[in-house]
Amino acid sequence: MVGIGPGSASDMTPRARKAIECAEIVVGYDTYLDLIQDLLSGKATIGTGMMQEIDRCQAAVEQAMDGKQVAVISSGDPGVYGMAGLVLELVSKYPATVQPKVNVIPGISAVSAAAAILGAPLMHDFAVISLSDLLTPWEVIEKRIEMAAAGDFVIAIYNPKSIRRTSQIETVREITLKHRGADTPVGIVHHASRTREHMALSTLENFTNEHIDMFSLVIIGNSQTYIADGKMVTPRGYRL
Amino acid sequence: MVGIGPGSASDMTPRARKAIECAEIVVGYDTYLDLIQDLLSGKATIGTGMMQEIDRCQAAVEQAMDGKQVAVISSGDPGVYGMAGLVLELVSKYPATVQPKVNVIPGISAVSAAAAILGAPLMHDFAVISLSDLLTPWEVIEKRIEMAAAGDFVIAIYNPKSIRRTSQIETVREITLKHRGADTPVGIVHHASRTREHMALSTLENFTNEHIDMFSLVIIGNSQTYIADGKMVTPRGYRL
Repeated sequence: MVGIGPGSASDMTPRARKAIECAEIVVGYDTYLDLIQDLLSGKATIGTGMMQEIDRCQAAVEQAMDGKQVAVISSGDPGVYGMAGLVLELVSKYPATVQPKVNVIPGISAVSAAAAILGAPLMHDFAVISLSDLLTPWEVIEKRIEMAAAGDFVIAIYNPKSIRRTSQIETVREITLKHRGADTPVGIVHHASRTREHMALSTLENFTNEHIDMFSLVIIGNSQTYIADGKMVTPRGYRL
Repeated sequence: MVGIGPGSASDMTPRARKAIECAEIVVGYDTYLDLIQDLLSGKATIGTGMMQEIDRCQAAVEQAMDGKQVAVISSGDPGVYGMAGLVLELVSKYPATVQPKVNVIPGISAVSAAAAILGAPLMHDFAVISLSDLLTPWEVIEKRIEMAAAGDFVIAIYNPKSIRRTSQIETVREITLKHRGADTPVGIVHHASRTREHMALSTLENFTNEHIDMFSLVIIGNSQTYIADGKMVTPRGYRL
């Protein structure tokens, strides 16, 4: 399980690069395989075209059980909404004696990459929430937003919006507005560390007017977060 | 602001390495300077011996304003309880015309490194909380623990315990036990990706009997987290 980081080769760790170089088979979304194309020559790949998420990871597990060195890649960190869990779940269905050895190699997560572009919004306690309700009941997600807002956590949101799913981010705005000021800073980052990288700074009142899609990462400040000189900063509490 | 990752050179990104190589002055805790000693020859360093956190970062800012290339290093990710915020806070005290340019280069965070060693505990929504009450009132921290526990977040804990501060982790245990089962898995990682790396798996009932110190990172599972074949896994919700 290899985290390739947010996109640029300069954000991929040597450990991750080596794991891909040593692999005979590389498995992942076509978009992510494209990002590491220069590492793939002479290797078999299993991409999006061939099968869906579960089937693809199952194929990876079976190849590994056949003795192959397999790298399953995730963008960002495979341990944060990535493929690490699915592969471990699939592996654990087999008797321990035949299970392949699984190593998780962390990558720079999307939330770390987005925070770095915005400034330093994660200097204090934060909650990471995905708004995707494909695999999680919406009530669970909504409860978490409520708790994170009430606890004055900085809130980082994965999968904020898709073509089909547009109302959830408005609900986040409404819930959070009950707990913090309308001028609380909100940062939105697209395609961190890729060629189309883009960031916007807004407020809790207005941020849903910005362009947000499935490639966006949204970070809502806590009650102390401020913007200075175009950077979003959550103070740690030093007396300066 | 450079994140050197959890410790091993193989977990430091090429972007971070290059920033240190290009710097004339490298600033950071002595322990972290030691971790990157092979990159420091011919460079000036400002370490722990010379001054405290704020003074050290202030010195870094002043050197940068003098036109020097300065790398302020943090272990893990400088954007997660690291030095990125403090430096931006100090820089913003100067008029925009004289401010040095600050880039935050993310690193593999301690929580990502710990999660990878434990398996895949962060596959679902999680909260990151520091128990250090040096800069944050304990009531704020306690409220966040309560909210994170009630929201069924996976909870990652930085600074769980120090010589002076031992009762807080017991309070975390008590609060979380009100919301989830006594057999909820808890993982404890020390010195991720360094030579003394160590991990332990326990339960919410018993984890405070394990060795925990200021170098530990503690991850408490959510209500769905399980341990299989020695790995801690929080399921994403796939029907397998």
